[in-house]
Amino acid sequence: MRVIIDVMSGDNAPAELLLGAVLAATEYKVDITVVGNRQIIDQIAKEKNINLEKIAVVDTDIVINMDDPALSVVRDKSGSSMSIGLKMLANGEGDAFVSAGNTGALLAGATLIVRRIKGIQRAAIATVLPFNSPVLLIDAGANLVVTEDIFEQFAVMGSVYMEKLYGIKEPRVGLLNNGTESTKGTPLMVETHKRLTTSPVNFVGNVEGKEIPFDVCDVLVTDGFTGNVVLKLIEGMGGFMMTTLKGMFMQNPLTKLSSLVMKEKLKGLKREFDASEHGGAPLLGISKPVIKAHGSSDAKAIKNAVRQAMNFINNGVMYEIARHAMEFSDKRANQNSAEKSTQEND
Amino acid sequence: MRVIIDVMSGDNAPAELLLGAVLAATEYKVDITVVGNRQIIDQIAKEKNINLEKIAVVDTDIVINMDDPALSVVRDKSGSSMSIGLKMLANGEGDAFVSAGNTGALLAGATLIVRRIKGIQRAAIATVLPFNSPVLLIDAGANLVVTEDIFEQFAVMGSVYMEKLYGIKEPRVGLLNNGTESTKGTPLMVETHKRLTTSPVNFVGNVEGKEIPFDVCDVLVTDGFTGNVVLKLIEGMGGFMMTTLKGMFMQNPLTKLSSLVMKEKLKGLKREFDASEHGGAPLLGISKPVIKAHGSSDAKAIKNAVRQAMNFINNGVMYEIARHAMEFSDKRANQNSAEKSTQEND
Repeated sequence: MRVIIDVMSGDNAPAELLLGAVLAATEYKVDITVVGNRQIIDQIAKEKNINLEKIAVVDTDIVINMDDPALSVVRDKSGSSMSIGLKMLANGEGDAFVSAGNTGALLAGATLIVRRIKGIQRAAIATVLPFNSPVLLIDAGANLVVTEDIFEQFAVMGSVYMEKLYGIKEPRVGLLNNGTESTKGTPLMVETHKRLTTSPVNFVGNVEGKEIPFDVCDVLVTDGFTGNVVLKLIEGMGGFMMTTLKGMFMQNPLTKLSSLVMKEKLKGLKREFDASEHGGAPLLGISKPVIKAHGSSDAKAIKNAVRQAMNFINNGVMYEIARHAMEFSDKRANQNSAEKSTQEND
Repeated sequence: MRVIIDVMSGDNAPAELLLGAVLAATEYKVDITVVGNRQIIDQIAKEKNINLEKIAVVDTDIVINMDDPALSVVRDKSGSSMSIGLKMLANGEGDAFVSAGNTGALLAGATLIVRRIKGIQRAAIATVLPFNSPVLLIDAGANLVVTEDIFEQFAVMGSVYMEKLYGIKEPRVGLLNNGTESTKGTPLMVETHKRLTTSPVNFVGNVEGKEIPFDVCDVLVTDGFTGNVVLKLIEGMGGFMMTTLKGMFMQNPLTKLSSLVMKEKLKGLKREFDASEHGGAPLLGISKPVIKAHGSSDAKAIKNAVRQAMNFINNGVMYEIARHAMEFSDKRANQNSAEKSTQEND
């Protein structure tokens, strides 16, 4: 098994990504290929005393930046570390790809170079929310405009992921909405609620914003616009609460003493909201495993993303999604031919 | 000045609402009319030793429940406390109306009985978010589907409200989006961003979910679907953090001791997220002041909502919104006649 890592991506590139790659290669006995500027990589390895023996290096000095347009991955920057990594994955020169870079470019590249699973209309970014029990938010930002077909595919892909990677039997699927009743939401939400009740998933109904932290579902289905707002608001609220708590603890000598007692616990709370603990976000719907690591990923986060990629491969997530996708295709083909014959009979 | 209160609404009706009405009448020297079941009101006044001398009572035994359809307010329950209160407001028998009841019914009733300000296409629910500095979220749940015209009206109404009621000069208006760049979001969001740059508001650009708690704008414009999710998620996150903190403080004798030291501070934090401190949500765009108090309002929250209604009246919020709305109407009329003459010339 070989995992390809774009070490030029993210805020801490390439040092932390390189270190994460070596840690993963050592700890998990997995083959690793890193893509990036060999000169810089060699220099950092020397400076930081990182042993590169266990990993393969593919050289490029082109990097996709955070403000590059998404399509640069297949256009003017098709020689970038991200593009090369995706092409290697598509060509079978690796089994999974990890990048901490530009999300839009990664999504575009994965879709255009690695391709979607047949029958899946859109790839989605799936992210595990940092609560006591894992909740997979899908879509976390890839598709701003969706349909009930696409919502249903999100529900199925999310269910497969949580069952295979988290061992949750019949994951509870919730639809994020502005109320719990089935009549709530826009016409699209009402239609999607209807659709999900007949889907091959364990649909538990609409979920409101205030319920998200309290373990009411394992898969939370939403469009990429709302998902992006939710994910970032959770991050913002975590930061706000930590800042507020710090202020409270710093007010007088007695509260400062309390802060010493609580120090480790507060660190734990901060860790809850820390990206490196929860690994990366898989791009579900792509025909091979592509993991988006957080932009601020450190070595540990990259190591975790590699483990996540390995679990992804070992548990056959892709095959299970493909199986469902075939059923969708068949169902739609039947619907279309039924509609056609109805029209012909009119 | 007379404020009308629907005392049969909300979780704590009618006792807490009645008490809040009496507190407001006493403290603010404002005339109060309460609408509700006189028999129950008299009984509670007797039991709780509430002096009803200062307030007028209008009798009805019909109540709109939380699960009644919105239009019941003008149909089968047009004799309810909410309907009667709204009719009194429309007829000039009071200057503002406060209810803690069914939001959908209140919005429908306010729109159909009291009517919108001329030129305003939709009334919106505006809610102040519980952070260190006030942020007005508009729309917090009334309009799931909107247009750039409606977004612009939200921006203007929100700006007037924050300037008049919070004394903020040229309130900063942000557009909630999935990124800060002007090209971010759905086509509607891109168009709205363009529109707001030419609006008579202090538009500071797109705002991401993670920025919401950190004082980046005074008015946060969004559609009612996203607004509802955001508002409820903030509530949920507040609850989640308090529960997590409690768990941390209860782990051993030393942390328990810390919790005693921090008790008052934690109460303060809880208060930050407590609806009663922040008053009710005005229905902006209605031609007279209608305040939606939180469903869980206690006497203090109702008293605060009355004060808010009084500020609303005293500061001429309505007239300022109406003035802008006239400008919108004129602009649209000009655009339409320009379009018409272009078409005629084609």
